[in-house]
This record gives sequence, C-alpha cells and structure tokens, in this order.
Amino acid sequence: MTAAATARLNDVNLDAVVGLATRIQEEPDAGATTWRADVKWKGAFRSEATVREFGPVPSDEPEALGGDDRAANPVEQLLGALGNCLAVGYAANAAAAGIAINDLDIAVEGDLDLHTFLGLRDGNAGYEDIRVQVYLDADASQEQLDQLHAKVTRTSPVGHTLSRSVPLQIHLA
Amino acid sequence: MTAAATARLNDVNLDAVVGLATRIQEEPDAGATTWRADVKWKGAFRSEATVREFGPVPSDEPEALGGDDRAANPVEQLLGALGNCLAVGYAANAAAAGIAINDLDIAVEGDLDLHTFLGLRDGNAGYEDIRVQVYLDADASQEQLDQLHAKVTRTSPVGHTLSRSVPLQIHLA
Repeated sequence: MTAAATARLNDVNLDAVVGLATRIQEEPDAGATTWRADVKWKGAFRSEATVREFGPVPSDEPEALGGDDRAANPVEQLLGALGNCLAVGYAANAAAAGIAINDLDIAVEGDLDLHTFLGLRDGNAGYEDIRVQVYLDADASQEQLDQLHAKVTRTSPVGHTLSRSVPLQIHLA
Repeated sequence: MTAAATARLNDVNLDAVVGLATRIQEEPDAGATTWRADVKWKGAFRSEATVREFGPVPSDEPEALGGDDRAANPVEQLLGALGNCLAVGYAANAAAAGIAINDLDIAVEGDLDLHTFLGLRDGNAGYEDIRVQVYLDADASQEQLDQLHAKVTRTSPVGHTLSRSVPLQIHLA
C-alpha cells in the first residue's frame, strides 16, 4: 500500500478494495456476485424496496401520473443509482491514483416519452437518453482528471447496465 | 370512467392516469418528460441522491467492497427501481382491467462480475442478467393474470431502460 492509501485518501478504504481485487485475481469465481432487492406493493402507486438488513425505501409517483407523490418514482431512483455508482467510481479511482477529492456533485437527467407506458402506442417505454454532468473539485491536473473520468466511465456497473442491453426475465410466480 | 375506477380499485387514481393519457393523445408533446436526480458525494463510498423536494436517500457499499455498509448500494438500488416500476405497472393495469390486487411482492436479483469494476479486465461491469419473480394475489382468472403480466412487461419504463441499450453521455464539467 502507498502512504496515501494508508491515510485513507478520500476516506476510501483502499486496503479493502485492493484486498478484494487480489482475492478475485487469485480466485476468479469470487468475482461473480448476485444482488437482490425485494419490493412490496403498499396500495395505489406506493411501494417499498428492501435490500439486505436496511430499512425499506419508499417509492411513489407524482400526482400528475396518478400517484400520491410521497417519494421519488422508479425512473428517478434509477437516475440516482447511476449518480451514486459514478460517485463510488470517482472516489475509488481517485484514491488509487493519489488524487484528493474536495467536492463531488453529479447531476443526472433523462428523457422519457410516456406514450408507451400509458398504452397509447407500442415502442420504448424507457429512457431515450441519459445525460450526466459531473462537478468535480479535486487536487489534480486536467490530464489526471480526464484519465480519472475515462477510467470511471469505463468501469461503472450501473453505467454499463444502462448503456447495454441486459437480458431481463420477468416471471409471474 | 367505470364504477370500479370511481371506487379507486387498488387505491389507484385511475381518473388521473386516464386524464393524462387523454391529454397526451390530444397533445403528443405532453408525453415528453425529463426526470432528474442530484447526487452529492459524502466521503468514502457514501453519497446521497436527491429528487425534487424529497429528502436525500443514502447510498453506500458493503464492507467487502470497501464501504461502510450504511445503505443499499447503487446496483441494489437499480434492482429496487425495477421492482417499484413493475409494482406501479401492475397496480395501474389491474385497476384499468377491473382486477383487485390483494397482495403483490416482487423479488428482483441480478448477476454481476466484479472483474471490470475492479479494473482487472475490460468488459461488462454491469449486470449480465436480471431475474424477477412476481408474487401476485389477485381476484382474476389465470388468463386475465397472464394478460396483465404481458401488458406490464410490455410497458415498463425501467424494464425497457434495462433491456435496451440507452445512449449515455457522461461529461466532466
């Protein structure tokens, strides 16, 4: 480990990340992970997603869409997941590169046409495109920042999930 | 409106949904929507996503991945968003079809190989596949349930976003 890592640059536990990477290099099967969320419908357009031991996170729709507007809706949650994923990528890869992050904000937005969701026509019910603006204040040269950005976008789990076509099996039990 | 809709079957405000659909049929541009989430990095792998006026929702990574394990991670949030989206789809389309839902639980899981995220090889950092089991208790025939299921999966905004390749632009400001 470098001195920077030992000092927990960006507060990142780089030892744990490097330890996991080393273990997966020695034992490739350890890289195969399965993640899970359980959703419970609560009436109307309200539901809750529970992950592991964490408390349930509410979901709803705006009133214009027929909801009670008590929480972010699923397509907004998806954008949040992308931003959160990129934040992890920046923190981890900056720490590995010895770059201190002072501040990091990520604005995510996406365009979606409601015709298909509302059953008015067949087609794409999902996002047509998603745009992200990353506001990064870090102690590094522009070249270092560009390299960091390239690394993060090349390795983002949520980014790849969205930019690729993922096989989706939905079964009614 | 049917009597069932007036009685708010499944507690769904079908009047609002039908009203929106009617407006978009008359004025197709009204179907074009833009959604947004703003993410703020909080140190280490912790961040928060804020949507509209709702309180920030925390994100973290498990300790094995170098996090402090205080919240669901981004790839888990994405699965939750899919389950929540399907719940809305079932509630809305069941109400429109006059089907009362007694109970609805949705289990979502996905497989993801960590090699690319950890920089050990190029490739797919995202989900390789996502599987959903829908546990629906509703007052309807199997044929009605199969039709409902087909309609929901054909019109899910998050489902389509995942099963299609979405253009993703990530800019470092």
